[in-house]
Amino acid sequence: INTFRIAAIAGDGIGKEVMPEGLRVLRAAASRFGFALELREFDWASCDWYAQHGQMMPDDWKEQLAGVDAVYFGAVGWPATVPDNVSLWGSLLKFRREFDQYINLRPVRLFEGAPCPLAGRKVGDIDYVVVRENTEGEYTNLGGVMFAGTEREIVIQESVFSRHGADRVLRYAFELANSRQRKALTVATKSNGIAISMPWWDARTDEMARQYPDVRVDKQHIDILCARFVLQPQRFDVVVATNLFGDILSDLGPATTGTIGLAPSANLNPERQFPSLFEPVHGSAPDIYGRRIANPIAMIWSGALMLDFLTQGQGSGRAAHDAIVRAIEDVIRSGPRTPDLGGDAHTEDVGQAIANQV
Amino acid sequence: INTFRIAAIAGDGIGKEVMPEGLRVLRAAASRFGFALELREFDWASCDWYAQHGQMMPDDWKEQLAGVDAVYFGAVGWPATVPDNVSLWGSLLKFRREFDQYINLRPVRLFEGAPCPLAGRKVGDIDYVVVRENTEGEYTNLGGVMFAGTEREIVIQESVFSRHGADRVLRYAFELANSRQRKALTVATKSNGIAISMPWWDARTDEMARQYPDVRVDKQHIDILCARFVLQPQRFDVVVATNLFGDILSDLGPATTGTIGLAPSANLNPERQFPSLFEPVHGSAPDIYGRRIANPIAMIWSGALMLDFLTQGQGSGRAAHDAIVRAIEDVIRSGPRTPDLGGDAHTEDVGQAIANQV
Ligand SMILES: CC(C)[C@H](C(=O)O)[C@@H](O)C(=O)O
Ligand SMILES: CC(C)[C@H](C(=O)O)[C@@H](O)C(=O)O
Repeated sequence: INTFRIAAIAGDGIGKEVMPEGLRVLRAAASRFGFALELREFDWASCDWYAQHGQMMPDDWKEQLAGVDAVYFGAVGWPATVPDNVSLWGSLLKFRREFDQYINLRPVRLFEGAPCPLAGRKVGDIDYVVVRENTEGEYTNLGGVMFAGTEREIVIQESVFSRHGADRVLRYAFELANSRQRKALTVATKSNGIAISMPWWDARTDEMARQYPDVRVDKQHIDILCARFVLQPQRFDVVVATNLFGDILSDLGPATTGTIGLAPSANLNPERQFPSLFEPVHGSAPDIYGRRIANPIAMIWSGALMLDFLTQGQGSGRAAHDAIVRAIEDVIRSGPRTPDLGGDAHTEDVGQAIANQV
Repeated sequence: INTFRIAAIAGDGIGKEVMPEGLRVLRAAASRFGFALELREFDWASCDWYAQHGQMMPDDWKEQLAGVDAVYFGAVGWPATVPDNVSLWGSLLKFRREFDQYINLRPVRLFEGAPCPLAGRKVGDIDYVVVRENTEGEYTNLGGVMFAGTEREIVIQESVFSRHGADRVLRYAFELANSRQRKALTVATKSNGIAISMPWWDARTDEMARQYPDVRVDKQHIDILCARFVLQPQRFDVVVATNLFGDILSDLGPATTGTIGLAPSANLNPERQFPSLFEPVHGSAPDIYGRRIANPIAMIWSGALMLDFLTQGQGSGRAAHDAIVRAIEDVIRSGPRTPDLGGDAHTEDVGQAIANQV
C-alpha cells in the first residue's frame, strides 16, 4: 500500500477555511482508492505565527519537512498586520526557490455550470494550461534606493534571468505542447518595451523551437496576449511565461472561466529532488475571510494534481485525480455552489459534497 | 482663428491605413468648427524608412518638428524586417521620453453596438480611464548579459523608478480622480512579488493619498486587477499604473469593450514644454495590413483627444472633440463597421462616415 507523506500548511485567511475541505477530499480519496496518507499539519507560514515569532517560518523549517513527499498549501497574506512582501518572501516564495519548484503549472478550464463572464462561450472553448517560470525573473529583492527619503529618490529593481532557468521552463512547455494534440505553444514576451531580458527570452525561445519542429510557436506581447485571453480564448493550448507574466495570465485566465476560486496550481520540482507544492491560485482574501463562503474547489483540485504528480500519473493516484475532477465537475454543474459561482452554499458544504461523491 | 500645427507620422502597417482617415476627420472638424490645420506629414519613424537609412528617424528629427503643437501618430513595427525593440526604441519610446510625455491617458469605454465579449454588460458598465506612467519604470535598456552565449548565461534587466516620475503620475491620477464624481482611484501594484520597487511605489501612493482625503484609494496587485477588469469592470473609475502594468491594463480594458480597434491614447506633456503625441493603442498589425479592414476609430478618437488637449478643453477644440466622439458613437451603433466590430466595411468607409457626420 502506497503511503503519501503530506505537509499541510493552511496559512492565512481563507487558506484556513479551504484547507480542511482539501484534506477531507484527500482522505475520502485515500479510503476509496486504497492509499495511505500521513498528514502533518503546520501552523507556521502564516501571519499569526509571525505575530508571535517575528518571522514567517521557523529556522528549521526544512528539517521539519524532512521526508515529506509534498506540501499542500493554503494561502498566505494578511496585509493589515504584515506587509505582503514580508509574508510572501518569508513563506511561499521561499518554498518555490529553496525547493527549486521551477515549474508552476496552472490549468485553466471552463466548467459546465460555471458563470462564465465571457458571452457565448461553452465548455471546451477555454481549456489551456499556463506554464509559469517559478524561481527567477521579475520576482527579486535585488536593487535598491538611492537618495532615499529625498526628492531625488531613485529606485532600481533588478530582474534576473538565467539560461538555465529559461531553458528548463521552455523545454518543459515545448515537451508538454508536443505531447498534446494541438501542439500549439504561445510564448509571452514584451520584447518591444523591455529591451534587455525580453529580446533574450525571444532568442531562447527561437533556439528551443528548432528542437521541436512539430510545435507551432506563437510569441505574443503580454499586452495583446491578455487581450486575446478575453477575445479569443479558444486559440490557446499551452502558454509559457516568465514569473510575472505567468502570474498575471494565471489569474486572468481563471477569471474568464467565472471565478478564480476554481484555479489550482502545481509548483513542481520535476526531478523530485525536493518536495513539490500544491496550492490554489487565489490568495488569502481577507475581505471574505470568516464568512465561510470561500470556494474550496481550487484547493481540492490542487490536491488532485498532487496525487497525480506523486504517482507520476499512474495507478491509484491517477484514478483518484480523475475521480476528484469528475466530482468537481458534478458539483459545479449541480451544486452546492459558493457565492462566487452564484450559489449560497458554505465552504464545507462544497467540500462535503465533493468528498461524498469521491 | 486658431491654427494647430500637427506633425502626422503614419509609421508602419495599418498605421498607414488609419492615418488618412484620422486626417480626413480632423479636416472635417476644422472646417465645421472654424480652426485651421497646418499639417506636416513625415515618412520616417517607420521600418520602410529604416530599410533605407539604417535608423528609424533622422538625426535632426527634433529640428524637423520645431514649432509643432502635437504629433499625430499611427503605429510602428514590422518585425519581419526590424526587431520590435529596435523599431520602437528608435521611434515611439523616444518620443515619450525625449518629449517628456509622462502621462499616457487611455480611456476605456463600452459603446452601444460594440460586440462586448463580456456577458450581460451594457453601456455604462465599462467606463474608466487608465493613467499610465510613460517614461520610466520597467521599460529600460539597462542591464546586460554575463557569460553570453554559454550555458552559464545570466541576464540582468533593470527597472528604474524615480520619486519625480512616480509622484507626478500619481498626482495627475489623484487630481483626475478627485475631479470626477466617483472619486475612486485604483492603483496597480505587485508589492508581494517584486520586492524593491513595488513596496516603494505603494509607499509613494500612501504618501500622496494623505493629500487627497476625498479620494477612495484601492491598491490592487496586477494579477487580481486583471481578473477584476473582466469580472467587475463597473468597479473602476481611474486606474493608475507603472509603464508596464499600464500597458497591460490598457490593452486588456479595451478588449473587454469588444475590440482594441477603438482605444485611443494621449501621450501628454501636461506642462506643454514639448509637443504631446496622440496615437491608437493598437499596433501596426502586420497580419491584417493591406486588406483595408483596420478599424480607424482608435486613430480618429485619438485625434479628438488631441484637439481637446490643444485647446485645454475649451471652445472650438472641446466642441470638435465632442462632435467627433458623438459621430463615433453613431457609427458604432449604426454602421458602417469594420470586421472587428462584426461588420464588413473598409477602413475608409468608416472614416468617411464619421467625417460626414462631423
Ligand atoms: C509598441 C509598444 C512598445 C507600446 C508599449 O508597450 O508601450 C504599445 O504596446 C503601447 O501600448 O503603446
Ligand atoms: C501571493 C503572490 C506572491 C503569488 C505570486 O505572485 O506568485 C500569487 O499571486 C500566486 O500567483 O501564486
